[in-house]
Amino acid sequence: MKKGLFITFEGADGSGKSTQLELAAKYFEERKIESIKTRDPGGTPLGCKIREILLNYEGDVAPYCELFLYLADRAQHIDEKILPALNNGKSVLCDRYVDSTMAYQGYARELGAEQILQLNHIAAKSLMPDLTFVFDVDTEVAAQRVGSKKDRLESEADDFHRKVREGYLDLAGKFPERIVVINANKDIEEVHRDVVRVLEEFLF
Amino acid sequence: MKKGLFITFEGADGSGKSTQLELAAKYFEERKIESIKTRDPGGTPLGCKIREILLNYEGDVAPYCELFLYLADRAQHIDEKILPALNNGKSVLCDRYVDSTMAYQGYARELGAEQILQLNHIAAKSLMPDLTFVFDVDTEVAAQRVGSKKDRLESEADDFHRKVREGYLDLAGKFPERIVVINANKDIEEVHRDVVRVLEEFLF
Repeated sequence: MKKGLFITFEGADGSGKSTQLELAAKYFEERKIESIKTRDPGGTPLGCKIREILLNYEGDVAPYCELFLYLADRAQHIDEKILPALNNGKSVLCDRYVDSTMAYQGYARELGAEQILQLNHIAAKSLMPDLTFVFDVDTEVAAQRVGSKKDRLESEADDFHRKVREGYLDLAGKFPERIVVINANKDIEEVHRDVVRVLEEFLF
Repeated sequence: MKKGLFITFEGADGSGKSTQLELAAKYFEERKIESIKTRDPGGTPLGCKIREILLNYEGDVAPYCELFLYLADRAQHIDEKILPALNNGKSVLCDRYVDSTMAYQGYARELGAEQILQLNHIAAKSLMPDLTFVFDVDTEVAAQRVGSKKDRLESEADDFHRKVREGYLDLAGKFPERIVVINANKDIEEVHRDVVRVLEEFLF
């Protein structure tokens, strides 16, 4: 059976990646390509419990505690949901994945992207995306879109968000075979058209 | 300032390790040696949330999800509680630590003890115990002591518990400089006397 495609949607909060994932899912549906939508963290019931800690815990979280919680979520997600879907020939559209961990914990928290990639290979059975969209947006535009209701990570200082953005762009340079950077300062429909252009080339 | 001692209490559920930790804490108090009691997982408020998942989640937990949850708990525990206590000259008496992860996830779940030790070094900033008691008990005696009210890990099959025990004994052979095996089939007071004998030699 043909294995499904694993496509991840990455970018800062406020980059519009989740909206673009929804639009891409509709595109898949219209083309009769079976797919599932999921998210990292929180793609499974167990993962939702981990996500709750990651986004809403009110005390200080040790950087390696944060990192290992993401990896724990991912290990469960891979086993319970992502691999079974791919092996059933379904494509998987995932909101965040390893590049988030590298950008946020590797670059912005400075735990080292290379080490994180190695740890991710252990947690995720070496599963990497076939295609990754990085929705790149000016830090100020992203902050405006997020507004004032922020979770634990969204509440980090501007400098943190700048490092996340630089991290993503650096990763795009390192993994050009799978990462496509999309200018996400534009409006939703325009960005979607850019996504579709990439998908058309990739799928057909 | 003199760094405190880091002493861990290990063994199967039903080995009596938690009771022995309490008795050892009293011994420290009587000798006017400042110490704290803690546990792994669940030594911090965040860790309690992780512990709740580890012991009581009702669905299947992927082996690497379980492993990374233990490591996440440990990273937080080290930063928030263990290192600050040790650096304040307090001894830390900890119910389970890295040897549990190696025995349960490494040996019994077969994720490999060597790999776990390396991951632990990342999570725990390479902090290893100065002294570890392994309370060794016949698997049947342990099962009797645990009784019928079991958590997720206690509910594993006999074969799992046998592998845990063999794991502990194998670790004791590999790390003789810090691990002392105590025969825990005996009654509480007798076992405590054996613990005190080791402590007397270690402390004075």
